[in-house]
Amino acid sequence: MLFHVRMDVAIPRDLDPDERTELVTTEKARALQLQREGTWVHLWRVVGQYSNISIFDVPDATAMHDLLWSLPLFPFMTVQVTALTEHPSALSANPAP
Amino acid sequence: MLFHVRMDVAIPRDLDPDERTELVTTEKARALQLQREGTWVHLWRVVGQYSNISIFDVPDATAMHDLLWSLPLFPFMTVQVTALTEHPSALSANPAP
Amino acid sequence: MLFHVRMDVAIPRDLDPDERTELVTTEKARALQLQREGTWVHLWRVVGQYSNISIFDVPDATAMHDLLWSLPLFPFMTVQVTALTEHPSALSANPAP
Amino acid sequence: MLFHVRMDVAIPRDLDPDERTELVTTEKARALQLQREGTWVHLWRVVGQYSNISIFDVPDATAMHDLLWSLPLFPFMTVQVTALTEHPSALSANPAP
Amino acid sequence: MLFHVRMDVAIPRDLDPDERTELVTTEKARALQLQREGTWVHLWRVVGQYSNISIFDVPDATAMHDLLWSLPLFPFMTVQVTALTEHPSALSANPAP
Amino acid sequence: MLFHVRMDVAIPRDLDPDERTELVTTEKARALQLQREGTWVHLWRVVGQYSNISIFDVPDATAMHDLLWSLPLFPFMTVQVTALTEHPSALSANPAP
Amino acid sequence: MLFHVRMDVAIPRDLDPDERTELVTTEKARALQLQREGTWVHLWRVVGQYSNISIFDVPDATAMHDLLWSLPLFPFMTVQVTALTEHPSALSANPAP
Amino acid sequence: MLFHVRMDVAIPRDLDPDERTELVTTEKARALQLQREGTWVHLWRVVGQYSNISIFDVPDATAMHDLLWSLPLFPFMTVQVTALTEHPSALSANPAP
Amino acid sequence: MLFHVRMDVAIPRDLDPDERTELVTTEKARALQLQREGTWVHLWRVVGQYSNISIFDVPDATAMHDLLWSLPLFPFMTVQVTALTEHPSALSANPAP
Amino acid sequence: MLFHVRMDVAIPRDLDPDERTELVTTEKARALQLQREGTWVHLWRVVGQYSNISIFDVPDATAMHDLLWSLPLFPFMTVQVTALTEHPSALSANPAP
Repeated sequence: MLFHVRMDVAIPRDLDPDERTELVTTEKARALQLQREGTWVHLWRVVGQYSNISIFDVPDATAMHDLLWSLPLFPFMTVQVTALTEHPSALSANPAP
Repeated sequence: MLFHVRMDVAIPRDLDPDERTELVTTEKARALQLQREGTWVHLWRVVGQYSNISIFDVPDATAMHDLLWSLPLFPFMTVQVTALTEHPSALSANPAP
Repeated sequence: MLFHVRMDVAIPRDLDPDERTELVTTEKARALQLQREGTWVHLWRVVGQYSNISIFDVPDATAMHDLLWSLPLFPFMTVQVTALTEHPSALSANPAP
Repeated sequence: MLFHVRMDVAIPRDLDPDERTELVTTEKARALQLQREGTWVHLWRVVGQYSNISIFDVPDATAMHDLLWSLPLFPFMTVQVTALTEHPSALSANPAP
Repeated sequence: MLFHVRMDVAIPRDLDPDERTELVTTEKARALQLQREGTWVHLWRVVGQYSNISIFDVPDATAMHDLLWSLPLFPFMTVQVTALTEHPSALSANPAP
Repeated sequence: MLFHVRMDVAIPRDLDPDERTELVTTEKARALQLQREGTWVHLWRVVGQYSNISIFDVPDATAMHDLLWSLPLFPFMTVQVTALTEHPSALSANPAP
Repeated sequence: MLFHVRMDVAIPRDLDPDERTELVTTEKARALQLQREGTWVHLWRVVGQYSNISIFDVPDATAMHDLLWSLPLFPFMTVQVTALTEHPSALSANPAP
Repeated sequence: MLFHVRMDVAIPRDLDPDERTELVTTEKARALQLQREGTWVHLWRVVGQYSNISIFDVPDATAMHDLLWSLPLFPFMTVQVTALTEHPSALSANPAP
Repeated sequence: MLFHVRMDVAIPRDLDPDERTELVTTEKARALQLQREGTWVHLWRVVGQYSNISIFDVPDATAMHDLLWSLPLFPFMTVQVTALTEHPSALSANPAP
Repeated sequence: MLFHVRMDVAIPRDLDPDERTELVTTEKARALQLQREGTWVHLWRVVGQYSNISIFDVPDATAMHDLLWSLPLFPFMTVQVTALTEHPSALSANPAP
């Protein structure tokens, strides 16, 4: 099941620099791991923003929530979640004859 | 170059039914063609809406505009365009060693 | 899987009265059927609005979309869909010892 | 009488950790108690948010206000309250013949 | 139980003039009747708008909904409903010693 | 002359507790005094919010501003002011024959 | 008593041209008359909009409402009304010694 | 050339009281001076807000910007600037015959 | 004097096709003329929208208003006007030594 | 490829004054350099705001993002990015015969 997620990140200025580095590093490692596992299907940077647009493939909504909630930067993100489904004009729905 | 586009469709109730069918059919054919050509990279339906979220891979902004402007349903769409770039935590930016 | 859906209905004034009656009657029958089947779990009226707030229990997002899209009044609704999951403080997540 | 309530929680980063734990623990205990008493009828987590959507069954608006105002996390919540009533297409309004 | 309601009226230009007169006359008669019965407690005009701000005293939310839904001009109103309760600094909550 | 005012209160967490108590106590005393004088005509709590909806009867707009500006909690309020006038369907405008 | 009013005008395309001319002509005559009487104190055009920003000096809110409601173009305006009072830094509040 | 400006002031609570007094005093002196010079043509207080609505008569947009930027309270203001022009129904555009 | 203007165009579907063609053709001719005269300094298309972002160099606000008001498509545009001035970091404000 | 960017700057009050000076000075030097290189094509100040509206000419969206992300004041900016293309009525698209 696919979810479209936009994350806008705002790390507080007064966060301890070491903690910040730790958070950002851990977030990146987690993102790479989830991509390799096929869960975090797409991850793009929005031009000019500390934001990403992502597509996740998860078993269900609970898995989606648990994944987002466990992201190291989650406490510093504004998150928008949109459920997706196959589009009737997508190639996958229109196999070549 | 990648663009993230959301299209919300609102076909007027009083559009001639044949014209409507023609528009929707042509739109679908065009979407399939552009997907096969690798330009319309992703096309998802937003759950509960007459809307899609799409990713386009185009040479530049002019190509993006011309493509959207030429869609049969363009006059009946509200369109949001967001420029994307590679995320530093994407797999593509972090090749395995 | 649970979805929270708000539907705001706005039937055009110039809709043929018979068509309107037909739509509203069919919508009601469909709502009752889906409630009896356990899919449309809750259905409440918002006070002072031609709107409802509903909870659906569906296999996945595709089922949710197909259900909403097929509602007779769908063309005249503004729909907001929110994915839900179990709350850690819900009774279901905290069985009595 | 039924109310639909959405609560978005934002606990300040600089809250004393013990106070935070105390608040969250007390909030959970209170939520469970109110669910067992049949007042807090439904409690769902919104996917990807530190938020819940809840249904309360209370004698009147005053009881609703007092309950919300007395929640341990109330000072850190943004709350939206919507009065509900029975929907004419609900099963409860359409008893089987 | 008290509800605060704002009604913004927008009667379509193309409504039949007789029907318009009938609606406005019936609406006024109904408003006067409900005021005399003590249900429509306050009714004020918002300066510069075709709008009113009203206070209703009704048994419960269902009565509030049924009243609003049955107003002759309801189909042409945008309605905002807010549940009220006694304020701890109101005179009624602070009887003179 | 009548004004409709909504006040949303947000007292900063780090305000000195004694100062907070003093402010809230003085605010309440002032509200009671103004109600007894017939200036603060109505004062209701909005359900689920640290907010009130009030009706003031003042000689003119300057009196309204001076009253609001002098409230002890004014620096911590978001205030919305709406001028009211008699509604043509109000009882007061339609004396019984 | 002073009110600040912004009026955004949107005359429907399908209004009869003669009626439109009549409305606009009458509106202008009324605006000039009210300016000469000292009621419509200021009247400015907003650059690039079919809108004006105006200052009215009226006895009270009821006079303000009646004036606006009686404008020929009122049915085609979106109106925002803001009550004003003397600013403590205005010249009028700070007479030269 | 005329500009309509709304300034909403929010002085931080933790500003040094002497600095605050100094800022407010200097702002007032500057406002009076600019009014005497005929640049700050009108200055009104918005009822119930720490806000003003002002009209400035300046040679051009650069003068408008420099004036606003140099106000002592500018760093604590939210400013909205709207360019004005003569209204075709203003007295100034319709000299008596 | 420079103004930044965004124009969003929405030509009604039921406009007579000849009138539409006439309007669009005249608009284009006028845009070209004003560009050649140095008044319409820049004119860009917003990607994916029937919109432009433009920079105008005009003597004053009145000239800006008259120009916009006289555009053939003005009745079908939503217009946003923003006054500009030289930026202190612009090359023009920092001549090479 | 052209991008339209609006940057609204909000430097925190408690930033160290030397750091602030350093940031603003470096930002200006960078802006001048990018203008001289032909990348930052236009840079205007918005009247009455600590904001600029800019046009950039960059090879692609990635270059646009990297440029904005590397601006010294980027952490203190709200940034809006809009992709532009040639307008069909621009002089460049309509060479003189």
